[in-house]
Amino acid sequence: MSSITWKISIITTTPEIFPGPLQYSNIGKSLADGKWSLEIIPLEKRKNNKKVKIDGSPAGGGPGMIMKADIVLPIINNMRESGDTRPLIVPAARGIKYDQKITKDLIRKDGLIFLCGRFEGIDQRIIESTGALELSIGDYILTNGDIAAINIIDSCVRLLDGVLSTQASTENESYEDGLLEYPQYTLPRDYGGLKIPDVLLSGDHGAISKWRYNQSLLTTEKNRPDLYRKYKKKTRDSDS
Amino acid sequence: MSSITWKISIITTTPEIFPGPLQYSNIGKSLADGKWSLEIIPLEKRKNNKKVKIDGSPAGGGPGMIMKADIVLPIINNMRESGDTRPLIVPAARGIKYDQKITKDLIRKDGLIFLCGRFEGIDQRIIESTGALELSIGDYILTNGDIAAINIIDSCVRLLDGVLSTQASTENESYEDGLLEYPQYTLPRDYGGLKIPDVLLSGDHGAISKWRYNQSLLTTEKNRPDLYRKYKKKTRDSDS
Repeated sequence: MSSITWKISIITTTPEIFPGPLQYSNIGKSLADGKWSLEIIPLEKRKNNKKVKIDGSPAGGGPGMIMKADIVLPIINNMRESGDTRPLIVPAARGIKYDQKITKDLIRKDGLIFLCGRFEGIDQRIIESTGALELSIGDYILTNGDIAAINIIDSCVRLLDGVLSTQASTENESYEDGLLEYPQYTLPRDYGGLKIPDVLLSGDHGAISKWRYNQSLLTTEKNRPDLYRKYKKKTRDSDS
Repeated sequence: MSSITWKISIITTTPEIFPGPLQYSNIGKSLADGKWSLEIIPLEKRKNNKKVKIDGSPAGGGPGMIMKADIVLPIINNMRESGDTRPLIVPAARGIKYDQKITKDLIRKDGLIFLCGRFEGIDQRIIESTGALELSIGDYILTNGDIAAINIIDSCVRLLDGVLSTQASTENESYEDGLLEYPQYTLPRDYGGLKIPDVLLSGDHGAISKWRYNQSLLTTEKNRPDLYRKYKKKTRDSDS
C-alpha cells in the first residue's frame, strides 16, 4: 500500500456539494484514512461584503455566462508558482471523451485539480494558458461540472492502492477485454418460475466459461455495436 | 409551466447519498417547488434486528456479489401492481449508452424508477422480467449506481418546464447540431497579454458567426473525431 496521498483540489462555485457522494462507503473511508485528500477552493461571489463578478457575458454575444479569466487564472498561477504540477481538469461537453484508459493515466499523477462551473462556460484563455484538459464524461448535458468531477474522482479513487477490499473487484470487469459483462445470477435457483440457466449450476467450468463468453458477445453486439465492431476487428487482426 | 410532478424513485443500498448534489441550485429549487419529487426506497441489510441477505455469490462462480431477485422483484412488482408504469432504469456498464436523445425520451415519461447497486451486480432475472433499461453513462467504472443515477436525474430535470431560468440556457448548446461548442471569452479584453480574438469585439455579426462555426468544426475534429465524421457525413448527405 502506498503512503502517498493522492491530492484533489476543486475550484468551484458550489463548494457545498462536496464531499457529497464521495463521503460514503469505500471511497469515503479511503478519504478518512488519508489515501486521498480533498481541498475545496470556493469561487466566492461576495468578498468583504462586496459583490465579486466571477462571470460575464460572452464576447461577441450569445446566451449564458462565461467564467472570467482574471478571477480564475491567479488561483491556478499561484498553484503553478508553488510547484504544483497536477493536471488541471475542466469537465466540459466540448472536451475529449473520458474513459477507463484516461482513468489509469490520471491515477499515476500526484493528484488532480478541477475547475467546475455551474451554468458558466469557461474563458478560453484559462484553458489555453494553463494547458487544461477538457473532459466530457458522456454525450449528455449536466447543470454543473461538480457532478462530472464526482464521477471522475470516484472512478479514479477506486483504483488507488488499498481502496477496494479485494483485487478481484477490479478484475474481470467490463471494458477490460473490450466486451460487456455477461448476465449474472445468484440464488434462489427458481423465483416464481424465473430460473437460473442450468449451465451455471452444472459445475462444468469449461461450459460455464463458454456460455459466459457467448453471452458477453451477444450483450455487446446488442447494447454497444461500436464496441462489438472494435472487438471483432481486434480479434480478426490478431488471427491474421 | 406543467403542474404535473415528475416522480423519481430510487431503490438503493446507500440511501444517505440522496438528495446529495441534487439539493442545490436550480435542480434543488425545482425539487423544493414540487416540479419533481424524489422517493428513496432503501434496500436494508438489517430488518427487525436481523440480517437480511440482499446479495449473493454469482451462480457459476467468479468474484463480486449479485443483488438478489427475491429481494428486489417484490418491490418492483408491487409498484407495477399499483399501476406504476414508469421505466425502471439500472445504471450499468453493460447497458446501452446514455445520451441527450435518451434524456429527451425520459422526460416525456411520468418519471423514473432507478435500481442502484454498490459493488453489486444485478440478477439478470430482475432485468428481464421487468424489462429494465440498463444505461451506461460512460466508458469508465464507478463504485456505485447512485452517482450514475444523479447524472441522469440532473440531465433530465434541467429540461423540465420552468427549471432553468431562461430558455436560452438550453439552446445553442453542444450536441444540438452535432458539433462541439466554440471557444468562449468574456472581459477583460487583455489579461496579462492574453487577448480576446479581435473578431469577437468587431461587432460584425456575420464574421463572428463564421468564426464560431469554424472554431466549432476545429474543436470537434480535434476532440471528438467520432462526432466530426458523423457531422461531415450528415452535411455531405444533405448536400447531394
